Formats: sequence, C-alpha cells, structure tokens
Amino acid sequence: MNKYTFDDYYNMVNGCIDKYVPVCNFSEDIVHEAMKYSLSIGGKRIRPMLVLEFCRVCGGDVESAVPFAVALEMIHTYSLIHDDLPCMDDDDIRRGKPSCHIKYGEAFALLAGDGLLTRAFGIIAESEIAEKRPDIAVKAIKALSELSGVNGMIGGQVVDLVNENRSAPIEVLEVLDSLKTGALIRCAAYLGAICADADEEKINAAQLYAGNLGYAFQIVDDILDVVGDENLLGKPIGSDAESGKSTYVSLLGLEKAREAADKLTDDAVRALEKFGNEADFLKNLAYSLAKRKH
Amino acid sequence: MNKYTFDDYYNMVNGCIDKYVPVCNFSEDIVHEAMKYSLSIGGKRIRPMLVLEFCRVCGGDVESAVPFAVALEMIHTYSLIHDDLPCMDDDDIRRGKPSCHIKYGEAFALLAGDGLLTRAFGIIAESEIAEKRPDIAVKAIKALSELSGVNGMIGGQVVDLVNENRSAPIEVLEVLDSLKTGALIRCAAYLGAICADADEEKINAAQLYAGNLGYAFQIVDDILDVVGDENLLGKPIGSDAESGKSTYVSLLGLEKAREAADKLTDDAVRALEKFGNEADFLKNLAYSLAKRKH
Repeated sequence: MNKYTFDDYYNMVNGCIDKYVPVCNFSEDIVHEAMKYSLSIGGKRIRPMLVLEFCRVCGGDVESAVPFAVALEMIHTYSLIHDDLPCMDDDDIRRGKPSCHIKYGEAFALLAGDGLLTRAFGIIAESEIAEKRPDIAVKAIKALSELSGVNGMIGGQVVDLVNENRSAPIEVLEVLDSLKTGALIRCAAYLGAICADADEEKINAAQLYAGNLGYAFQIVDDILDVVGDENLLGKPIGSDAESGKSTYVSLLGLEKAREAADKLTDDAVRALEKFGNEADFLKNLAYSLAKRKH
Repeated sequence: MNKYTFDDYYNMVNGCIDKYVPVCNFSEDIVHEAMKYSLSIGGKRIRPMLVLEFCRVCGGDVESAVPFAVALEMIHTYSLIHDDLPCMDDDDIRRGKPSCHIKYGEAFALLAGDGLLTRAFGIIAESEIAEKRPDIAVKAIKALSELSGVNGMIGGQVVDLVNENRSAPIEVLEVLDSLKTGALIRCAAYLGAICADADEEKINAAQLYAGNLGYAFQIVDDILDVVGDENLLGKPIGSDAESGKSTYVSLLGLEKAREAADKLTDDAVRALEKFGNEADFLKNLAYSLAKRKH
C-alpha cells in the first residue's frame, strides 16, 4: 500500500478544500468568503488526516475518502466559528488571526457556520462512494450527525456552557472533553474505516485509538495553556486559570496530567496492533501530538 | 389510495416530532428543551404536509416519508431560531411567544439551532427508506443540503441581510424569496416525490407546483403585513414599511400584488394536472394559503 506523510495529507486537504465550498450563485459572496477564510486558518488538519489514514490502513482508496475528510473539517470549522461568537466564548482571535465574526460581522459568521454545517452533509451525499455504495454514505451521515450533535460535539459545548466559571470535578471534565473534542476525533477514525468498508474489529480498534488520542490531546491542550509559548500557540496562555475553569492541570497538577497524557498515548498506540506494520503514521501522530508545543 | 386531511397531517407531524428530538444523555437538558420548544411553536406545518402529500400522490407509503417531513421541519425551525437572534433580525416574539433566545438565552438558542440542523440529516440517514433504499436517502440529503445551504435558504438570508434597510428592486426580491422561503418549499415537494420513487415528470410537476406556491405564499405574507389582523398573525403589522424594506406591496401596490398571488396560485394548481383526481388536497392547500388571514 502507498504510504503518505503528514505533509502529503496536509497538502491533500488544503489543496482541495476550497473547491468543496459552494460558490453562491446569487451576487453576494460574503458568506462564501467567510467560509473559506475560516477553513483556511484551520490548524493541524488532524481530523481529515485520521479519516484518510484510517481509510488507507483498512485497505481503502484514500482518494475516495477525501470528501468525507473535508466534510468533517467543515463541521469542526463551523463549530469554531459559532464557539467564537460573542454569545458563546466571545473570542476575537483564532489561531493568531481575527475570528470570523470580527472579520465579517456576527450575522455573516453565524450564516457561514450554518453554511459549512449544511454543506458537510451534502459533500458526503455527492461523493463517489455515495454513488457506488450509498449504504456507506448513509452510515457516515448517521455517525456524523450523531457525533457532531447534542449527544456529541454540541453536547460538549452545552456541558461547557453550564459549567462556565465554576470549578467542575474531573468526571464532568472527562464527559465534556469526550464530547466537545473527542466525538469528532472518534468520528474521523470511524469515517475512514467505513470508507474502506472495514470489518467491525478494525472499526472498533480505530475508535479505541481515536478515543485515547482525543483525550490525550485535550490534556496536552490544558498543559500548554500553563507552560506553552504564546507565540507558538497563537493565543495568550493562562486563560483557563484566569476564567476559573477546571482543567486537567488544575485538578491533577502538572506532573500527573503529563503522566495521564502519556498513558493515554500509549493506550492509543496499543490499539493499533490490528494494523500491524501499517500503523507507523498513526503511532507517530499519537506521539507527536503528545509532545507538541502548540 | 387513502386520502388525508390537513388535520390528519398536522396531527401526524405534531404527534411524532418530539420523538425525533434527541434526548441528551449528559445531564444537561436545556438544549433539548429549547429544540422542543421551538418545534412546538411551529406554525402551519406546510413543509412536512407537502412532503407527505407528494409522497402519497406519487404512490408512495406516507408513513415512510414521515422522517423526511420531520427533518425538513427541523431545518425550517433552526432557521427561525437563528434568524431571530440579536445579530440577525433581533426578534423577541415568534408566533406570539418569546423567541428561543429570549426563553433560553442566546448561547443555548444558537446551539439548539445547530442541534436541529445537525439532527435533520441524521433522521433521514436512520430512516426505514435509508435502510431499504439508501440511494433515495442519499438523494434526499443532497437536495436538503443544497436547498437549505448557501445556494438555497441560507443564500436567501444573505441576500436579505445585504439589502437590509434599503429599497431593493423586484428582481432582487424575487431571488431573495425564491431562496429564503421558496427553496425549502420546493425541497418539500421534491422529498415527497422521491420518497415514492416518482419518475422525473412527476418530480418536475411537484417542484413547479411548489415553486409557484412558495412565491404566492411570500406575496400573501407581504399583503398581510399591510392589511392583516395583528391578533391572528401573532405579530405587529406594518413592520416591513417601518424598516423601509421592499415588499411586493411596496413595489407593486396592494391590488397588483393580490393579482400576482392569485395568478401564481392558479399556476401552481395547473402544475397538478399530472396527478389527476388525486390532487384535491394540494389544490385546496394552494387556494387556502392564498386566502389565508395569518
């Protein structure tokens, strides 16, 4: 099987994502621009990478999974746009650049988010896989709707809002993160595996890896908010402590948080046994996310 | 074929819509409540009725189309929630009751809208039709994404925003309405027809009917904003004139607007010839919407 590097996937996603943003046929291009803007300041493209690589390690055609990868990145991006709005986190800066509503105004940012969310499902429904194997597309849409909905990502935002400005116990934090960031990461692994029509054993292994990876990712995020470099992060550090929010660091201490992240990373890597020596990319991804500086 | 009345469909939709709203499994029920609240103050259920009746007149099983009808109503409802937000139309009252964000706060209203939009696609993907005929579900999701996206309903909101507080010519108004309200009404007819696996001729007739119906509907809306009864409408009249927005009445005058609505209604009814004597419900719907008082 052809192998791909981080950069291959990164370029593959960035090189095509714009073409999936619908051009408005009705004179006004503002929402189209706002959607492209927020997609372009997107970060590491971890979710689409996971879709593509899990498709590959499960023996699927990576190219055919690209629309699924892009759809997931659109859902992730819409959630950031809506999360930054004044009525939510009220963040003016996203990855060192003005947030969507700062650049385009609140109304267009709201609609750009709605537009990305709406489009994501259409991209899957229009894909080659949907043409040849509509049953797979239906499965993907069902999972995407569930894992980004009120029992997935949106549910995480609800738990976050309800616990805003109060110190939540670790059980709440775990639920919050397994929904808010974990759900889409698990969805990525699932989508990749089903694009390759993988068997249940492989699907489960993919989701186990992703569950541990997502959890570790969030703990490292909390660690970086304490010991990170503002220039590398593109945002001020110490914001969690300032807002009085519980984090893994505030609840466990820096050292134990670090240990937990390392253990979860090891668990993620162990889940890859099913994929034998095809799993290098995913191993490296887990270790590099655990050691990341931003 | 069994025939259904307005009330049958109304009760069919209202009787089941709550069961499609996902219960949050994670302690916080606010978004779930907000979604149910906004669905319950929903109005005439015209869109779901069109889905169900077009399924019937095309020879399909009405029950099987219910999830598609509910999905469309969820999209319609999310658009009202987001449209009422302070950064959009800033409306405190919706159908005589507090808007979602007045009752639940802006953040939860935003998430309730996102939740309904996300769920709509999942409902179709989980339906019996999706199980038996995933190709039909994929077609439906593609259409729903397009017609509610930036080249459909959201596009209409963009055109509306851009022309806010300025007098738009009738060509702009026509585009605006064919997107903002027309797109989902055409989508309803399309979904109903494809649930019945209708042939292209019937699908086209359904969409022609719906296009004319939606356009007439909007003109009547504008007329009611001038000559309507506030108590029946559940909102103050004269708001269009106050905001300086173009309407069919301000551009054509009351009499010509009335004539245009009647002509479009006749055109809608004429498009029903394909359905022979099964078309009574749809004829009556067109006439009753043209003559409505609210």
